[in-house]
Amino acid sequence: MKIVIDGFGGDNAPDEVLKGTALAVKDLGIEVAVTGDIETLKQRMEALGISDNGIELVAAQGVITTEDNPRSILKANAGTSMGVALNMLSRGEVDAFISAGSTAAIVLGGTMIEKRIKGVKRTALVPLMPADGGVKYAVIDGGANLDCRPEMLLQFAILGSCFMETTMGIKNPRVGLLNIGTEEEKGRELEHETKKLLEKAPINFVGYVEAREAPLGAVDVLVTDGFTGNVFLKACEGMGVLMKNSMKSIFFANLKTKLGALLVKKNLKGVLKHLDYKEIGGSPLLGTAKPVFKAHGSSDAKAFFGAFCQAKSFVENNAIEKMTKAIASIVPEEAAEDE
Amino acid sequence: MKIVIDGFGGDNAPDEVLKGTALAVKDLGIEVAVTGDIETLKQRMEALGISDNGIELVAAQGVITTEDNPRSILKANAGTSMGVALNMLSRGEVDAFISAGSTAAIVLGGTMIEKRIKGVKRTALVPLMPADGGVKYAVIDGGANLDCRPEMLLQFAILGSCFMETTMGIKNPRVGLLNIGTEEEKGRELEHETKKLLEKAPINFVGYVEAREAPLGAVDVLVTDGFTGNVFLKACEGMGVLMKNSMKSIFFANLKTKLGALLVKKNLKGVLKHLDYKEIGGSPLLGTAKPVFKAHGSSDAKAFFGAFCQAKSFVENNAIEKMTKAIASIVPEEAAEDE
Repeated sequence: MKIVIDGFGGDNAPDEVLKGTALAVKDLGIEVAVTGDIETLKQRMEALGISDNGIELVAAQGVITTEDNPRSILKANAGTSMGVALNMLSRGEVDAFISAGSTAAIVLGGTMIEKRIKGVKRTALVPLMPADGGVKYAVIDGGANLDCRPEMLLQFAILGSCFMETTMGIKNPRVGLLNIGTEEEKGRELEHETKKLLEKAPINFVGYVEAREAPLGAVDVLVTDGFTGNVFLKACEGMGVLMKNSMKSIFFANLKTKLGALLVKKNLKGVLKHLDYKEIGGSPLLGTAKPVFKAHGSSDAKAFFGAFCQAKSFVENNAIEKMTKAIASIVPEEAAEDE
Repeated sequence: MKIVIDGFGGDNAPDEVLKGTALAVKDLGIEVAVTGDIETLKQRMEALGISDNGIELVAAQGVITTEDNPRSILKANAGTSMGVALNMLSRGEVDAFISAGSTAAIVLGGTMIEKRIKGVKRTALVPLMPADGGVKYAVIDGGANLDCRPEMLLQFAILGSCFMETTMGIKNPRVGLLNIGTEEEKGRELEHETKKLLEKAPINFVGYVEAREAPLGAVDVLVTDGFTGNVFLKACEGMGVLMKNSMKSIFFANLKTKLGALLVKKNLKGVLKHLDYKEIGGSPLLGTAKPVFKAHGSSDAKAFFGAFCQAKSFVENNAIEKMTKAIASIVPEEAAEDE
């Protein structure tokens, strides 16, 4: 298996990309192509003591930034580290793609350079969020599609369920529809119409779920439109930061509390690690015909390694094939042709 | 000043209602009317050692529950502890109303039994949320109006701003519009159209704000539609519970961490108290022509006392009068007549 990674995507590129790559080559037994300025990559590998065993360096020029128009990934920025990597995936030279670069460019490039799975109306970025008890759940859509129709949410539910089952190893994932209550009459027309579709879908649909219950482990896949999904994710993120700041204010209050901090340090670290989105690895872009993963912009070597693990598991378990079959089962052949 | 409280609303009624009432009478120098079964109230007051000084008991029969149709507060359940209290407010016998009972019944009763402020299209329940640094911010709408038009959000922004200024003592409150990014093009049509109105409104509008920034103290008033607002609130609540559970798992891991817990206990308690929605007191129902406060269902005496503090401050600072003027300044006389 060979995975391509955007060598210059993310705040800590290329060093952390290279360190994560070295870990992946060693521990996962995969080959990795790294795109970017070859001289710089070679120098950094030497400085970091990383051998070129299992690593192919692929020439690319410059980086697409978050300030660039994401559409420029198609032409003007096609030769950047991200553009070259996406085109390698598109030509079938690699099995999966990872980048910590501009989210908008990954979503646009992943959708335009790659094809979508037959019948899929929209692609969606699917972040994994920490829940109580050390588990994780997927939020789909995390922000790509602000105005969604029920049929789109149905597809998201199926894609998210396939992902959690194939890649995250969760049997029969519980799929919930985000709503402001669990009673029949709660919610907007979008929720009411989507619920009817999800009840008939080939998934383990557990009904409406309130935003409060998702971080407490009620679902494996949380389905909602991209606007609500993004608000949900960022509210969770903000509360996470608030809590971390609060803990700091508790532990650094005085000498006594600092001693207390020393005693719980190890356990605290483990819990914070679970709650840290950086540790989670990549968010897949689901709906594309080939595996596209977005790593967090502030990813370090460990986070990149996590993204490699996900991508490998995704490929090994034929996630795309299973998604294609599941989508075909709900989309009549004619309708799919229209797309 | 006289405030009426629903004696049997909430999980801990009537004992915690009565204890909170006794505190309010003593510390705030107000009179309180408590509605409900008089015999029971008298017995509980005697058992709790609460004198009837400053407390009027007002006869009512039964309680409206969350299972009851909220509309029944208007007729079938008009004689319950909540119905009697609302009607006292409506007749002008008291200056403000507090209940920890069914939210839906309070919103419906507060809107139907009371009149709305002239020109106000919809009422909204406005929870106060904990933010970094020990401060609080208001979320409007918290869940009453799922589909909102820009004009409604404009009114919510003005009502919320007036509330934070008059009742919570925040000068020139920062009003932000919840969105999935701060760039011009981010968001749905609702956000784009609302932004135009807020820019011209008599408030301190700080522009779009991401869900992540609100718990970190970026705004005093967070404006959004009721669906998104409710998802936001409940996501924050769920993350709060997740964090509390995580802290428990840290501190109760072993003997060493338990000792650590002892050392930070006092500081931990203070922080948790700030983060606990129960401590915040009441959520006002804004837009009604008289003060209506919803206390959390699980309120204890302290939380009820907090609601009394808010209601008193609201009345003393002529919040309704100021809201009426502010709404009139944006609603032409003719438009107001149509309502």
